[in-house]
Amino acid sequence: MRPINHLVQPHIGKIEPYLPGTQPSGSGWIKLNTNELPFSPPEEVRQAILGELDRLARYPNPRSEDLRHTLAGFYGLAVNQVIIGNGSDDILNLLARAFGGKGRETVDTFPSYSLYAVLTAIAGGRIRDIPFAEDFQLPVEALVESRADLVFLTSPNAPSGVQFSSESLSRLASRLDGLLVIDEAYVEFAEDTALPLLGEFENVFITRTFSKAYGLAGLRVGYGLGSSSVISILDRIRDSYNVNRLSQAGAMAAIKAQPIYLSHIKQVKETRNRVREALIELGWKVYPSKANFLFGSPVDATGNRGPEVAAELFSYLEGCRILVRTFPKHPLTASFLRISIGTTEEMEIFLERVKRWTRGA
Amino acid sequence: MRPINHLVQPHIGKIEPYLPGTQPSGSGWIKLNTNELPFSPPEEVRQAILGELDRLARYPNPRSEDLRHTLAGFYGLAVNQVIIGNGSDDILNLLARAFGGKGRETVDTFPSYSLYAVLTAIAGGRIRDIPFAEDFQLPVEALVESRADLVFLTSPNAPSGVQFSSESLSRLASRLDGLLVIDEAYVEFAEDTALPLLGEFENVFITRTFSKAYGLAGLRVGYGLGSSSVISILDRIRDSYNVNRLSQAGAMAAIKAQPIYLSHIKQVKETRNRVREALIELGWKVYPSKANFLFGSPVDATGNRGPEVAAELFSYLEGCRILVRTFPKHPLTASFLRISIGTTEEMEIFLERVKRWTRGA
Repeated sequence: MRPINHLVQPHIGKIEPYLPGTQPSGSGWIKLNTNELPFSPPEEVRQAILGELDRLARYPNPRSEDLRHTLAGFYGLAVNQVIIGNGSDDILNLLARAFGGKGRETVDTFPSYSLYAVLTAIAGGRIRDIPFAEDFQLPVEALVESRADLVFLTSPNAPSGVQFSSESLSRLASRLDGLLVIDEAYVEFAEDTALPLLGEFENVFITRTFSKAYGLAGLRVGYGLGSSSVISILDRIRDSYNVNRLSQAGAMAAIKAQPIYLSHIKQVKETRNRVREALIELGWKVYPSKANFLFGSPVDATGNRGPEVAAELFSYLEGCRILVRTFPKHPLTASFLRISIGTTEEMEIFLERVKRWTRGA
Repeated sequence: MRPINHLVQPHIGKIEPYLPGTQPSGSGWIKLNTNELPFSPPEEVRQAILGELDRLARYPNPRSEDLRHTLAGFYGLAVNQVIIGNGSDDILNLLARAFGGKGRETVDTFPSYSLYAVLTAIAGGRIRDIPFAEDFQLPVEALVESRADLVFLTSPNAPSGVQFSSESLSRLASRLDGLLVIDEAYVEFAEDTALPLLGEFENVFITRTFSKAYGLAGLRVGYGLGSSSVISILDRIRDSYNVNRLSQAGAMAAIKAQPIYLSHIKQVKETRNRVREALIELGWKVYPSKANFLFGSPVDATGNRGPEVAAELFSYLEGCRILVRTFPKHPLTASFLRISIGTTEEMEIFLERVKRWTRGA
């Protein structure tokens, strides 16, 4: 036989895989590194999952039809404008395969969710990064001029937390020849959404997830909302049973348990705003966040900031079993830490440790 | 903007999606059409899933590391010879993307699992079908002569139920330049397996699933076993969190609950053999099956067989709320029904209805 590395597709042999945030083993960690919700699922979601256990021998509904109906009703969309994925990553992967890849100009804003580039590379294409300025606002002109077939962006953005205005997204959509994918993974923590653009522009596609505001990262459910023509293309190439029974049932129950999630979200937003003020008081630069995390550049005891200072605080916190996230590879992010919002208690411990570190202890 | 059908990759615009077997809504059906196990999951699996409910807010282990260890231990393989998928379809998709697609010669035996062709088409390639003779034995010479880069085959085969001998698979592997994927979705219902070939041939790759013998089709877990070089390539391109927490936990518990599954499997095999004899007594031609289904061509009251007779019995059974599966498109399969093995009671009802139909009632 030929060696395996001769058999593999050349573009795949060169892929650098996406590196997910650390999932520490062992207990006692305050985990503020992957933007999860710090609450266990409500009883309604547990019961919905329990209700499916006796049916596990049977294949799930291949199209997650009930969940599509639930979401379509929730958003006032047609059922053929909704697709369900094994996490929104699944949907992003389908988008990269159908509209990106070889011969297509795929573009994202940078720095942002690094998976867009990985998915594009696996699809046989290359992504072009349109850089943010320091204010992390949407670079509309540069995106339009890119003449992209496919644009990926996250709003509210990660890691900055900045949400793009509907006006700027609308301006971009109207002038773009290609498909505009707006990844709204964090949108439930904001006041605004790009959803109304779906009614105006056939080329706007929105992805969402149950992993953040619905606290179901462990269940892997995401969805896409867009024009029926885009949805039907994605449906042709998705895995025929891409979402399992328990995930379909759990996600459906979560949508129906809105009051609980609204109170969770309210608490996270209040904590986020309070922690932001406290960090600013310590001299940090912290972007205004519309997500469940803060992106801030720490200042040490001697008033210094910069990549070394960020790295030093990261290590100090890790030593206290508090995990946050660094992005050391880019000048716009290297001096910053991204801190997911945990429970009130977790964030008090976090702040207390940061203050202790600031005092040089 | 350009019209959506100009934006989509041309090869994807032409895909004919895989058509999964019907999942009837409403109760009262005897469902013998998608080769599921007719038993609910054992208490151990339920408990393992329950034990994860409080952790659903956290992302799962991205590599399903514990399940890899469990399976490696179970089969006496190294951990880097195991990969976990969102069903074995997920693994087959990765194989098609990495080793199939554009510029690669992908081959399968035909008729077989029609997903291989769909996955290859989505990856931008075309599959060449090597036809079975009427005995459904492995066409070793034709496969070798195909000079394939990638071969997909199912053993025991679906829909025939025929398992290929280890000797023939070994002969094929040793003479093949490319990667040989042996889909052992049904192997737990057989006495033999191709597993020993993994130690002999770097180009043999085996896929397996929890959907059939482990009765967890609703949970979507499959796995791949192969050389570490192939596994590491697939790991680069799989979805970073491809298997959720509940699925990882449930599958792990299932592996540990062997005695229960062995007794389920024993019952299915006994029922399978008994039903086969009963159908042969009615004049059917039924292939010897090493899977949890039978593939047989019915004979009607007047002694006729053929596509119309198979279609007629299919409709009759459907009218009795018994679902089986037809494959009307191919001369080797059009006169046959594929009947999954249900519970003893379900199969008695099935046989009783078939007899009634045979008598022309």
